[in-house]
Amino acid sequence: MNADGVLRRVIQSYQEQLEAELRGIVGAEDLALYDMLRYHMGWQDEYGRPSRQRAGKFVRPAICLFSCEAVGGDARQIMPAAAALELVHNFSLIHDDIEDNDSMRHNRLTVWKLWGQAQGINAGDAMFALACLALLGLKEKGVRDGKIIHCAKMLSETCLRLCEGQCLDISYENRLDITIKDYISMIARKTAALLATSSSVGAFLGTEDQKLVACFGEFGKELGLAFQIHDDILGIWGVEERTGKSRSSDICKRKKTLPVLYGLREGGSAVKDELARLYSRESIEGEDIASIAKILDEIGARGYAQALAQKHYRQSLAQLETSGLPAWQLTQLKQLVCSLMDRNY
Amino acid sequence: MNADGVLRRVIQSYQEQLEAELRGIVGAEDLALYDMLRYHMGWQDEYGRPSRQRAGKFVRPAICLFSCEAVGGDARQIMPAAAALELVHNFSLIHDDIEDNDSMRHNRLTVWKLWGQAQGINAGDAMFALACLALLGLKEKGVRDGKIIHCAKMLSETCLRLCEGQCLDISYENRLDITIKDYISMIARKTAALLATSSSVGAFLGTEDQKLVACFGEFGKELGLAFQIHDDILGIWGVEERTGKSRSSDICKRKKTLPVLYGLREGGSAVKDELARLYSRESIEGEDIASIAKILDEIGARGYAQALAQKHYRQSLAQLETSGLPAWQLTQLKQLVCSLMDRNY
Repeated sequence: MNADGVLRRVIQSYQEQLEAELRGIVGAEDLALYDMLRYHMGWQDEYGRPSRQRAGKFVRPAICLFSCEAVGGDARQIMPAAAALELVHNFSLIHDDIEDNDSMRHNRLTVWKLWGQAQGINAGDAMFALACLALLGLKEKGVRDGKIIHCAKMLSETCLRLCEGQCLDISYENRLDITIKDYISMIARKTAALLATSSSVGAFLGTEDQKLVACFGEFGKELGLAFQIHDDILGIWGVEERTGKSRSSDICKRKKTLPVLYGLREGGSAVKDELARLYSRESIEGEDIASIAKILDEIGARGYAQALAQKHYRQSLAQLETSGLPAWQLTQLKQLVCSLMDRNY
Repeated sequence: MNADGVLRRVIQSYQEQLEAELRGIVGAEDLALYDMLRYHMGWQDEYGRPSRQRAGKFVRPAICLFSCEAVGGDARQIMPAAAALELVHNFSLIHDDIEDNDSMRHNRLTVWKLWGQAQGINAGDAMFALACLALLGLKEKGVRDGKIIHCAKMLSETCLRLCEGQCLDISYENRLDITIKDYISMIARKTAALLATSSSVGAFLGTEDQKLVACFGEFGKELGLAFQIHDDILGIWGVEERTGKSRSSDICKRKKTLPVLYGLREGGSAVKDELARLYSRESIEGEDIASIAKILDEIGARGYAQALAQKHYRQSLAQLETSGLPAWQLTQLKQLVCSLMDRNY
């Protein structure tokens, strides 16, 4: 079984319980608001008929549940926290799709594209509220109150980091002076914060050893950085059918993803000038998109990004090495991480 | 001192502490995200310079703090809860302004109008996250964990009600078959839920007597219904300079507010036909707005709405009567309620 197969197997082992938890939270109420949420989660089509669509791989819950078990906790007890993390992720997707003007996600129309911007904003807000409620379900699982409050704080702080990251990401669109440091600071908030919280909440609910919890937080953060850089690469050179969204959209929207920043700063003067010229336009379209992808590839931007992703990936594994976990736990976690990084879609 | 003066006095007595609490939560961080929030709260102008703008009357915190003191609690201890309610209200305002395409609030440009829709959505999300964090500040005030979790649950459930209400409100814009019952069900969620939670959270944190808490919940709910109906009246016949937004916007947007519903259902056949014709258009503009206000006034829609607001207002007071509170407490609360209903802006 290859690494991707391992990921699927381990995620599937929790998938049933997690999906039951998520369906319980989102509910079956006959209000248009919840139809939008069920559509987004892939459980309904746009007419409200039951369907089963691929709507995400539950990466964050998987990391949360694995981290919990790795430190000796019971994954079944913390299912509400795993569900909350998935709902926060989905709340941010619904709003990001509006903010980034994206029409497609997982090869389906986005919520706002079907129901309009106003209801799209509203649907994201409802998903946020449900995430908060989901977490409080830890009480029924016998988790003690103090721990629940601490997790609620972590979750809310993470949502704030997501907003900060999204705010920076949007503000970078109109700028050419973004440094790699600015970029790392942005993705640390936009992507890595939620992965860090996924692993640290999982560990926190599974152990009283705060050093171990901190170690899992760092593991998740480094993994998140690697994950986003990898996503940036796929955003330019990925296979559209598998990412479920237009490959060119990052370039169209003048997103300052890592390969582009590399080109703007490290390309020869002719390359820099050409990129600066294209990225100064209102939007980038047609042949210019393919041309940018080609230029970036030629000057080694893809290789640079891959190397940086690998570096953070190794640093995430190094965190696990220092955790003092038994060897078999380490192996299992590494397989999970490896699967996440191995994806070519 | 008139009733409005009483409201101002009692709100001012808490205003300083509450504003310090709010400023502490929103923070002074030098990120564009927080500039938007500080602008919305009226503490900064659009260039980030300190300013003092009227940005709301802290109605929800006032009801929360008063309810707490009325049942024998300590208002200072529950300031984080009062702040959380105000932040939830403001999160919903920031998003509602985008959803309703409103450019002005309190005579200032709205957040999305200044920073664009994408950042506006983002700013509202951040305000939501801050509201959740604010509430958890109850821990530092010595409130016990179990109570904090219960309040967090109430707050998240209320946010869900707000989304449901907003979803219904938007969906009603394109419909002519809305009943008064549909309308009440919508405003119960959109407006009354947060007022009900304001009073019941306040009471819940001030007493162990659950019957009393329920009584305050009903009081807040009835008050909220009265409050929204009153707002509907102001939305057609209010004084623009005092409401801070365009008087005609409810009509422009074909909002099915109570006076309009009355006209559509209870007007003579000529009136019904004329209203149905106007409300079937894409938008309502120019002389038609004044014409609608005049028609509604003539057939008694204003009087009908005033009577219904009064009914819910009396029901809110009746709830207090049954609470068994000492007479002086009752008097003070009634003055607060009276002030809220007396506003002509």
